[in-house]
Amino acid sequence: MEDDPLTRLEDIIPKHMLARGKITLDAVLAPIKDLLNRRQFPKKAWSESQVELLLRLLSLMDTDKDPEAARVGEREARIISPLLERLSAGFCHGVGRSGHLTAPQPKAVGASQMQFLANQVALSALKKLGIPNIRAASVLPLSTGMAIALSFAAMRRERGVSRVLYPRIDHTSPKRGIELAGLETIPVNTTLDDDAVIVDMSDLERKMSADGIAVLATTTFFPPRESDPVKEISKMCAEADIPLLINNAYGVQSERVMSSIRSAIDAGRVDIIVQSSDKNFLTPVGGSIIASPDGAIIEQVAETYAGRATAAPIVQTLSAMLLIGLERYTELRDKQKSNLSFLKEQLESIAGKVGQRILDVENPVAIALTLNGLNVTGVGAKLYNQRVTGPRAVRSGDQGSCIDDYPHSYITMNAAIGARRKDIEKATIKLYKVLCS
Amino acid sequence: MEDDPLTRLEDIIPKHMLARGKITLDAVLAPIKDLLNRRQFPKKAWSESQVELLLRLLSLMDTDKDPEAARVGEREARIISPLLERLSAGFCHGVGRSGHLTAPQPKAVGASQMQFLANQVALSALKKLGIPNIRAASVLPLSTGMAIALSFAAMRRERGVSRVLYPRIDHTSPKRGIELAGLETIPVNTTLDDDAVIVDMSDLERKMSADGIAVLATTTFFPPRESDPVKEISKMCAEADIPLLINNAYGVQSERVMSSIRSAIDAGRVDIIVQSSDKNFLTPVGGSIIASPDGAIIEQVAETYAGRATAAPIVQTLSAMLLIGLERYTELRDKQKSNLSFLKEQLESIAGKVGQRILDVENPVAIALTLNGLNVTGVGAKLYNQRVTGPRAVRSGDQGSCIDDYPHSYITMNAAIGARRKDIEKATIKLYKVLCS
Amino acid sequence: MEDDPLTRLEDIIPKHMLARGKITLDAVLAPIKDLLNRRQFPKKAWSESQVELLLRLLSLMDTDKDPEAARVGEREARIISPLLERLSAGFCHGVGRSGHLTAPQPKAVGASQMQFLANQVALSALKKLGIPNIRAASVLPLSTGMAIALSFAAMRRERGVSRVLYPRIDHTSPKRGIELAGLETIPVNTTLDDDAVIVDMSDLERKMSADGIAVLATTTFFPPRESDPVKEISKMCAEADIPLLINNAYGVQSERVMSSIRSAIDAGRVDIIVQSSDKNFLTPVGGSIIASPDGAIIEQVAETYAGRATAAPIVQTLSAMLLIGLERYTELRDKQKSNLSFLKEQLESIAGKVGQRILDVENPVAIALTLNGLNVTGVGAKLYNQRVTGPRAVRSGDQGSCIDDYPHSYITMNAAIGARRKDIEKATIKLYKVLCS
Amino acid sequence: MEDDPLTRLEDIIPKHMLARGKITLDAVLAPIKDLLNRRQFPKKAWSESQVELLLRLLSLMDTDKDPEAARVGEREARIISPLLERLSAGFCHGVGRSGHLTAPQPKAVGASQMQFLANQVALSALKKLGIPNIRAASVLPLSTGMAIALSFAAMRRERGVSRVLYPRIDHTSPKRGIELAGLETIPVNTTLDDDAVIVDMSDLERKMSADGIAVLATTTFFPPRESDPVKEISKMCAEADIPLLINNAYGVQSERVMSSIRSAIDAGRVDIIVQSSDKNFLTPVGGSIIASPDGAIIEQVAETYAGRATAAPIVQTLSAMLLIGLERYTELRDKQKSNLSFLKEQLESIAGKVGQRILDVENPVAIALTLNGLNVTGVGAKLYNQRVTGPRAVRSGDQGSCIDDYPHSYITMNAAIGARRKDIEKATIKLYKVLCS
Repeated sequence: MEDDPLTRLEDIIPKHMLARGKITLDAVLAPIKDLLNRRQFPKKAWSESQVELLLRLLSLMDTDKDPEAARVGEREARIISPLLERLSAGFCHGVGRSGHLTAPQPKAVGASQMQFLANQVALSALKKLGIPNIRAASVLPLSTGMAIALSFAAMRRERGVSRVLYPRIDHTSPKRGIELAGLETIPVNTTLDDDAVIVDMSDLERKMSADGIAVLATTTFFPPRESDPVKEISKMCAEADIPLLINNAYGVQSERVMSSIRSAIDAGRVDIIVQSSDKNFLTPVGGSIIASPDGAIIEQVAETYAGRATAAPIVQTLSAMLLIGLERYTELRDKQKSNLSFLKEQLESIAGKVGQRILDVENPVAIALTLNGLNVTGVGAKLYNQRVTGPRAVRSGDQGSCIDDYPHSYITMNAAIGARRKDIEKATIKLYKVLCS
Repeated sequence: MEDDPLTRLEDIIPKHMLARGKITLDAVLAPIKDLLNRRQFPKKAWSESQVELLLRLLSLMDTDKDPEAARVGEREARIISPLLERLSAGFCHGVGRSGHLTAPQPKAVGASQMQFLANQVALSALKKLGIPNIRAASVLPLSTGMAIALSFAAMRRERGVSRVLYPRIDHTSPKRGIELAGLETIPVNTTLDDDAVIVDMSDLERKMSADGIAVLATTTFFPPRESDPVKEISKMCAEADIPLLINNAYGVQSERVMSSIRSAIDAGRVDIIVQSSDKNFLTPVGGSIIASPDGAIIEQVAETYAGRATAAPIVQTLSAMLLIGLERYTELRDKQKSNLSFLKEQLESIAGKVGQRILDVENPVAIALTLNGLNVTGVGAKLYNQRVTGPRAVRSGDQGSCIDDYPHSYITMNAAIGARRKDIEKATIKLYKVLCS
Repeated sequence: MEDDPLTRLEDIIPKHMLARGKITLDAVLAPIKDLLNRRQFPKKAWSESQVELLLRLLSLMDTDKDPEAARVGEREARIISPLLERLSAGFCHGVGRSGHLTAPQPKAVGASQMQFLANQVALSALKKLGIPNIRAASVLPLSTGMAIALSFAAMRRERGVSRVLYPRIDHTSPKRGIELAGLETIPVNTTLDDDAVIVDMSDLERKMSADGIAVLATTTFFPPRESDPVKEISKMCAEADIPLLINNAYGVQSERVMSSIRSAIDAGRVDIIVQSSDKNFLTPVGGSIIASPDGAIIEQVAETYAGRATAAPIVQTLSAMLLIGLERYTELRDKQKSNLSFLKEQLESIAGKVGQRILDVENPVAIALTLNGLNVTGVGAKLYNQRVTGPRAVRSGDQGSCIDDYPHSYITMNAAIGARRKDIEKATIKLYKVLCS
Repeated sequence: MEDDPLTRLEDIIPKHMLARGKITLDAVLAPIKDLLNRRQFPKKAWSESQVELLLRLLSLMDTDKDPEAARVGEREARIISPLLERLSAGFCHGVGRSGHLTAPQPKAVGASQMQFLANQVALSALKKLGIPNIRAASVLPLSTGMAIALSFAAMRRERGVSRVLYPRIDHTSPKRGIELAGLETIPVNTTLDDDAVIVDMSDLERKMSADGIAVLATTTFFPPRESDPVKEISKMCAEADIPLLINNAYGVQSERVMSSIRSAIDAGRVDIIVQSSDKNFLTPVGGSIIASPDGAIIEQVAETYAGRATAAPIVQTLSAMLLIGLERYTELRDKQKSNLSFLKEQLESIAGKVGQRILDVENPVAIALTLNGLNVTGVGAKLYNQRVTGPRAVRSGDQGSCIDDYPHSYITMNAAIGARRKDIEKATIKLYKVLCS
């Protein structure tokens, strides 16, 4: 019957049309093939269709999709209903092998490749976005705080680290991470530099003489806290042969921050750089990316996760990177900078009207306005009820300023990557109303 | 215009039909309302539509869905493309608050409720499936090994635990978990009881006198290893005032195992019971459930995760539990038992033909067939290539038997919950062919 | 960088695993390749993943997916939001070319292939399900009534048909179809054969002498109406050189009905056979399948649709046929037969208790129980309110029995393909309660 | 257990947070509630989440979703697999009742409401977009050509129309529509007005004296054809008491065209206005919208569809209208106008370079450039291969110009609603290259 002239495709659809269809399909598939071959952060953003096709082709390589497989293990990615396949983008086997997060999983060859691609694309992205001098990266299905935990646990196991010098940041997660790994946090003092709160380098230096030490430096936090001088610290770490972990939570969006890390790597010793996937690459919350100039340490961290993990944050991070690409990321960065300028103008204008001022602090995404003499908690609560999310209102002297007795009360607002001008406009208008009421 | 008779719904669709539509909608919504009110593991399985509707309604309460919100934080669940909303079932904010996994997140009220429901349904499910004497449960977005890590880290912080007595199990993940948390593993010997490998209770007792001790007992592992006698151990722990964590990785499917844990709780001291979500509830790999007769310890473990986490494994676990329900779980358990009998028959028949025998070991899901005198590695490799996944072929004396110098080589196969009779049929036929070739 | 040993896939994932992944992917893709090559109704049911992959690959050949296309027509399958791509399974261009439903569309090569596959698979399915002596088939994005309209409009244009002899069926749609096409319906009388209502063959014969005549015969309708004797009619049509259209609305499920059509084709003249896609192949409502021993007439009908049409019913019908396959269809047919027996038993049992009886009528899916002396309308309304859908309650002498003055009141229930035993159980229990109340 | 303090939501999630979640949910649901109450084309565009939630809530009212239903009809929206539910957005029952497309379907109350909403929103949209003087509208799951067929079939049945005066348009679909309905097309001549081809009004007037006549006027076609003067024609129709159908295929995007129809309604007699849903509202191909100042005729057309129809094009059209909304539609119209200017500039610039000229024809979306003395077919084929879709290259004197012996060869390009400036840029650059090669 196949030879019946009525049933032959070529007799129904003319050849030049079939050729045209092939051209479109090839154009759609080209970035996918290129990714599989070269594993680079793409220049041009992918379409959703392309991402979905990649994920499907990969997930169809896992054994749970094999119609001929006989599955007699206790864990076989069996699912109760197809909805769960959709909820996991088809990666029902998760990623990793017991006790090694990036080890290929024999039952999940597709997931293993997906994870491999995610790691390679993350490496390529970070290189192209400002730190070309790294050699390895890994997307972890964990928060940045947990990535810090795994990193220090690996350093404990492999390098005998038992204590972490931590220039003061008033943020719970990193401390919890250090604690989870069973290490001790040794706080390093901060000091006031006009409005800005900065690390006290002499205190850091003094404390570096202890045994079993590593350093945790931070590039991004709320004003009045400024970034730690990572280049200077990396030099000190190199001299003292002390591991340095940089918490670069949302620093990828900032060319300046990335440039400082690049210099730090060139000038001294940087062991691991940790960044959030959602704050930098606009994915749902839940993943992080660790990177290093040294491939071995990244592997060691991967060997610290105890079991097989959810593939979801890795799928989401890979997808987001492909859906952005370098050109669009550059546009997003430009937008972020112009939004930050706009936020500054708006807050300056409010400051003038209500008799406050902008704190003179260098920060890549946030601006702080003083709230001296005002009911700070009330301002925060009112903004929450007015549907403004994300501002931080801190009372003079309270926890949050990363120093004891900070002399100002203030509120911070962010113009982070992905925010819209409209967000800033609305938020500042509402702030003004709250301050006037 | 609203009053124009042409445009009134009632004039177009007769009242009795609208009433009929309402009846259907109410019937579909009834389980959702019941869940929100009573938070119980449902008796009847939900449909995919119902689960999707629940997830959508909840995720629409998160601030990133608020069309009027002004979002000026550095983390606002901004996503680059709607595909990421689908990949995260709408829970772009993840779960938890920095350093507290189950703390409600002000920006993500929907995700907070989703997580709360997941925890409550998990609690209800475990109660109904055999351990009614627990008081709290929590679904973690982490492997069971990581759940063990967080549990011991919480015990270290709250109860001064520093060393874990671990009756020998040849499995990497739990050890990695203990290590990640910065505790020391003290192996407890096993001993041979005919074919079976069991914990050496006298060795355990001897080692319990040390300081800063907790015990990690195991209910499910491959034969020839048998379950640890958790009731006896819990009594000893109660007497000695030592915390006990039970790794119940895939024990929920077994009424006998669940019953033994129930007795252990009643008779002595059980602090935490850890179980896999995928191995017991047929979700994609990536989550685990911790439970306890004591609510406080569950909270303490939740406070050990460093940051905000991916919601995906929690969404998947909640969905799977709703898609199963008690009645279907009971059916699945019955099927598992009959599959296990079938597996035993098949292997016994093969044993007779090839001059081997079944190991006489009590195990809720697995059977082991001796491979004495055969090329064990070759058998495993051939089965992998023949698309049989999950069997374990172990050479006499090799790592894997949980004892030094186990006298038999053997292969194990599982008839776990969710497996089909066809899997077992195919796998044993192929095994027979491999053994005859 | 591609040569960096850290970044090569083969170094990360062992070769034998990659080979295993390829085996799974090949196994998943094999039915897709086979479909593209042989275009047959598959023996084995496809998985949802396979269907979705096929649809995606095809839809990615349409020009609206071409990233390099410059689209300057007035109709370019532009969509306002990706949701619409999902709602149309990616076939935004629809199917057909103005005024020819199956003509390949230069902008939509993928949709053209999808439609071609749908038509070929439908042809193959109908052949394998009982009418091997057809030569062409086409899935129309229209109801069976509209398919009748297009068929007769094509017969008018091509063969000068202006009037349709229609053995009486009390159903609006076919009559509307004939009317839409601008033809005149000439009713043919029915007659009583004990309980059964059958066509009056002598009246049919008498009326066949007129000019410009075609015949519309029916194989499936509610009892007491029986199927028209299509073999006898087709012989008469052959002799008189009159076109015959068989409305086989839900006859594909019945081997007996299909066999009678096969004989009709062999014995005489059958021009077109029309069937519903949803009633026979368990798709959503909206499509139909026309088939013929003569390819030309199918093309002529396709040239009767005025414009480009929605692809949705065609995509749904193709998907449903692939998701069923021959083996599962055979199982569904067996189930249908046993459900019909069960329905008969249930109704007989009720009949005995309430003093009614089963009408002695041959029907492939339905049974009728007399309701003599009862409030027929009340019974129907009560069942609707009790959530029983699909029964027909007809008063003696009323429209619906396909004859004037049918002597019994009755209710019909169906055990159609895809129904569950539970449906029949519930419906008959409720009927019994209604009859007793 | 419900009273256990550990399990109460309020104890877990603070009240002010729950209130905040409710605010977001209410904000998301507000447009849905508003739609159900007021059934208006929304001012603001909906999000995909909102549309999906609306569709789900409605589709959950159909009886196939009722877990308690006993379904014993031959057509019960049974589907073989959940994929088909997704492919039909849940509306497995389709729309309509046999022989009445907009009649409420007792088994599908949700689909009936969905369809009702689609019709009302379409009415509201057309009113707000330029023809406030209509009273009813209906979204048909059929092409515009089929809508014309149904319209004329209804006019034949209800008003004795048997022939259609059709000012010449070289387009197959409308003629096929008239033919399908069994009516005769009487062509009305066109005439040349400088470059433009326009209807010969005297010929139209002359032919209007015949019996059983209706008129089909056209507002949108390719240059050199200009829109028919619908106001003048509607006056003539009013005087002669002749039905007028306006084929407004892609005229909604044009304020000028809509204004002319408004005047035509006010000044004379307009029975039905037909428009494409995809060309005007950026949905996938497959639906159309009919509108009228007279509600009765819209109902009569709906009663002409023979059977129950696919819901897909109606769901898609409703979704698209909600995803656009009035504000965004206005933006799209503005963009269309500026794109048209840009297209004109580009083509004028090419014309100057290659010695051709722009035809002086009024057209809301298209511009024509002469190709005198060139290989017209070659130009078209080359552009197709260069991935330019949608231009029409017509040789002097060929079919396509809507007049015999049109003196110019030419190519048309469109700047239709939804096109991107980039499309026009690429297409004109490629055209220039082709003309120079």
